[in-house]
Amino acid sequence: MQRGTEVRAVVLLSGGLDSATTLAWARARNYACYALTIDYGQRHRQEIKAASLVAERLGAHAHRIVPLDLSWIGGSALTDNTIPVPTKHQEGIIPVTYVPARNTLFLSLALGWAEVLDAHDLVIGVNAVDYSGYPDCRPEFVAAYERLANLATREGVEGRLFRIHTPLISMTKAQIIRTGIDLGVDYTPTLSCYAPLPTGRSCGHCDACRLRRQGFAEAGIEDPASLATPP
Amino acid sequence: MQRGTEVRAVVLLSGGLDSATTLAWARARNYACYALTIDYGQRHRQEIKAASLVAERLGAHAHRIVPLDLSWIGGSALTDNTIPVPTKHQEGIIPVTYVPARNTLFLSLALGWAEVLDAHDLVIGVNAVDYSGYPDCRPEFVAAYERLANLATREGVEGRLFRIHTPLISMTKAQIIRTGIDLGVDYTPTLSCYAPLPTGRSCGHCDACRLRRQGFAEAGIEDPASLATPP
Repeated sequence: MQRGTEVRAVVLLSGGLDSATTLAWARARNYACYALTIDYGQRHRQEIKAASLVAERLGAHAHRIVPLDLSWIGGSALTDNTIPVPTKHQEGIIPVTYVPARNTLFLSLALGWAEVLDAHDLVIGVNAVDYSGYPDCRPEFVAAYERLANLATREGVEGRLFRIHTPLISMTKAQIIRTGIDLGVDYTPTLSCYAPLPTGRSCGHCDACRLRRQGFAEAGIEDPASLATPP
Repeated sequence: MQRGTEVRAVVLLSGGLDSATTLAWARARNYACYALTIDYGQRHRQEIKAASLVAERLGAHAHRIVPLDLSWIGGSALTDNTIPVPTKHQEGIIPVTYVPARNTLFLSLALGWAEVLDAHDLVIGVNAVDYSGYPDCRPEFVAAYERLANLATREGVEGRLFRIHTPLISMTKAQIIRTGIDLGVDYTPTLSCYAPLPTGRSCGHCDACRLRRQGFAEAGIEDPASLATPP
């Protein structure tokens, strides 16, 4: 959508490292960014506080935190507290932190909002390299969603097509971090942990913590969040 | 999913005529039906009460009413009270009762629930004949969603494929009503109106009322809801 020179994009923002980088990417492309954070009953709801800080610091035009309880569906260590968050990574299987239909739902809320905002760019920080084996982070999922979006909506049917941007999809975690640093992202307020301690600090043991630690190590950068007081 | 002879299906149930018929169709196929009603901030929220009655009378195995507020998105006469529900049908345009991304979101909640229930059949009463011009009621939308569902989920990736059933998609409203009557549906508790009166009665003027009235007239059947006390 163009109003004067303003082109709007809806950016999914969790409060983690990847989505912060994604928001910075979209800002660097001069999108007026409408950041969307979903409060889905996640175990690591502290990330929502992080998302607000990230949205503000990176200059989102607007930030919405929307409730969409998925705990009644459960079936994931992130939405069912009786399923423990694993501390060991198992190659080749979809981990129990997979949340059924999560990215499909998140993109669909983004799509509905975008249609009303007259925005045609949706931005999501999915990643298929250092990823945790989630089916809804793969390029084929994103391509299928984009196709669906343009069949599901008034905008799509009338030829004002939606595009799903996945700037991180083929980056390693270290590349994501370097990209973010180049774009001026301060990772201090971001939270990647699946099971933060009551103090707000990361557990240091889950898949998300492990990937983040490896990423910063590979990038040769100290993780500023590990030094700071949690948001 | 099979447990003994039980095969589960998730059935989207609005409380209207079409979804009641859809539930009866699924029951007649011996699915253990998990009915899902979404409280999305619709103007015609009285339909939720109707959905509970329909679920009970048609023998749903379970019925969930899930909140998913879409009024913050708005952009529709059904979710934004400042947009009036039209009383005249306009051919060839998508009407203002279209709700951005609604069926995509509803199917995605059904998909998440189905994955956890070990159900692989989703049933939705969309209709592309006597329909109101909604893009997300067309066969091409449904086919694209089914494809997406099998890329988005653990079940799909592991080869236990989801199927989206749309038993009404090519029926006229009169055919839907006759099908329902043959399946023993009592349409008394169903509500089709977009803008019911405070008494719970249908307005009689909106597109949904018009289609329902025409359907019963064509089927040569009196609409029992027009005689009964609203639920």
